[in-house]
Order: sequence, then structure tokens, then C-alpha cells
Amino acid sequence: MENKYPEHLSKYAPVTPLLRVELGEVLRSLRLSQGRTLREVSADAQVSLGYLSEVERGQKEASSELLQSICEALAVPLWWVLREVSDRMSLVNSVPDTVPDDLLPVPTA
Amino acid sequence: MENKYPEHLSKYAPVTPLLRVELGEVLRSLRLSQGRTLREVSADAQVSLGYLSEVERGQKEASSELLQSICEALAVPLWWVLREVSDRMSLVNSVPDTVPDDLLPVPTA
Repeated sequence: MENKYPEHLSKYAPVTPLLRVELGEVLRSLRLSQGRTLREVSADAQVSLGYLSEVERGQKEASSELLQSICEALAVPLWWVLREVSDRMSLVNSVPDTVPDDLLPVPTA
Repeated sequence: MENKYPEHLSKYAPVTPLLRVELGEVLRSLRLSQGRTLREVSADAQVSLGYLSEVERGQKEASSELLQSICEALAVPLWWVLREVSDRMSLVNSVPDTVPDDLLPVPTA
């Protein structure tokens, strides 16, 4: 594809976080904000404790069905969780507010 | 869990669409809006044509890495795709603007 981030700028390109990592962090912070344990939420979601733990740590991709179950156990709609994940990822991808020196235009003599 | 949607109202509960189905539809509409073929986008994303086709039809869960590749091939950030999916899912989950008759309070004699 032609519209890739220019090669010589790649060192400034923000590293896009993996979806499963961001998703896991949002799910974990939701659970902790409710003061609930992995054991409680995994029981409510009918997933194994080990699986939920791996999803929260971004080590396993959650299937659509199991993600739905986890969200129901946390009593939040999946669309809300996706919005949170989207917001977090867009912040990482946002334009930096300072310009590195070697990106500034070089004055021609 | 205690805060489930009440059993006797379940026939009015909107069916929550599966994430992979919504995601597939957003990816497909993006590709079509760019006038590109499955072949072109799968080549750019370095995924097989069959795999991309299955993801678009919501028949396969895309891993975080492959989803990232597909988004790069479509030149849209993943967070934007997630926002779209979230918006679509929240519309389906929104409160209906009419109240079914048997949900209206029954006047006591």
C-alpha cells in the first residue's frame, strides 16, 4: 500500500498497542473498580479463572461469545468496553504536541 | 449474578450482536467504500483471501495482530474501527421508544 507511515519517520511512529492488551486492561480495571476478584467474575461469566486472568493480561484473545459473557458478568455493555478501548488507543495514536528538531523544516541557504 | 435482565422481560431484550459480526461488517463496508476487492486488501494486509472473507462475514475471530494488519491495509486506525463497531452495537442496545402493552402498569381496581 502507498499510504504507509513514511519510513524515515518510523522512529517517531507511536507503537500501536495490541487490541487484546488494551481490552484486558479495561476489563481488569472495571473488575477492580467493582472490588471483585477474578474468582467471582469468572464464576459469574462461566469462564475459567485461568482464562479470565489471561484475557485480562492480554495473553489470550477472547472470543466474541466469551467477551460478551465477561461483560455481562461485569454488568457493562460490550459497546461501552469497546468505546473505552477505542479511546485509549486513539490517545496513544494522537499527534504529539512537540515536534522533534529533525522534523522541522531545514532553512535553505 | 444478580443484575441480569429480568427473565420475564427477556423476550423484549435486544439480541446483542456478536462482536465479530459487527467488526466484519464495518471492515467490509470500509473496503467497499474504497472500491477495493478482497484480493487487493488481503494482499496488502498479508492475510489470505479466504481468511479476510471469513472475518468480513463474521465467521472467524481476527487476532489482534491480523486485525491491525487489515486496518493498516485499509488505511484506517484500529481505534476508529472499534468506535464504529461500538456505535453500531450501542444503537442496537438503545432503549426502544415504544413500550410494549404488557409492560405498562396494570391499573389496580
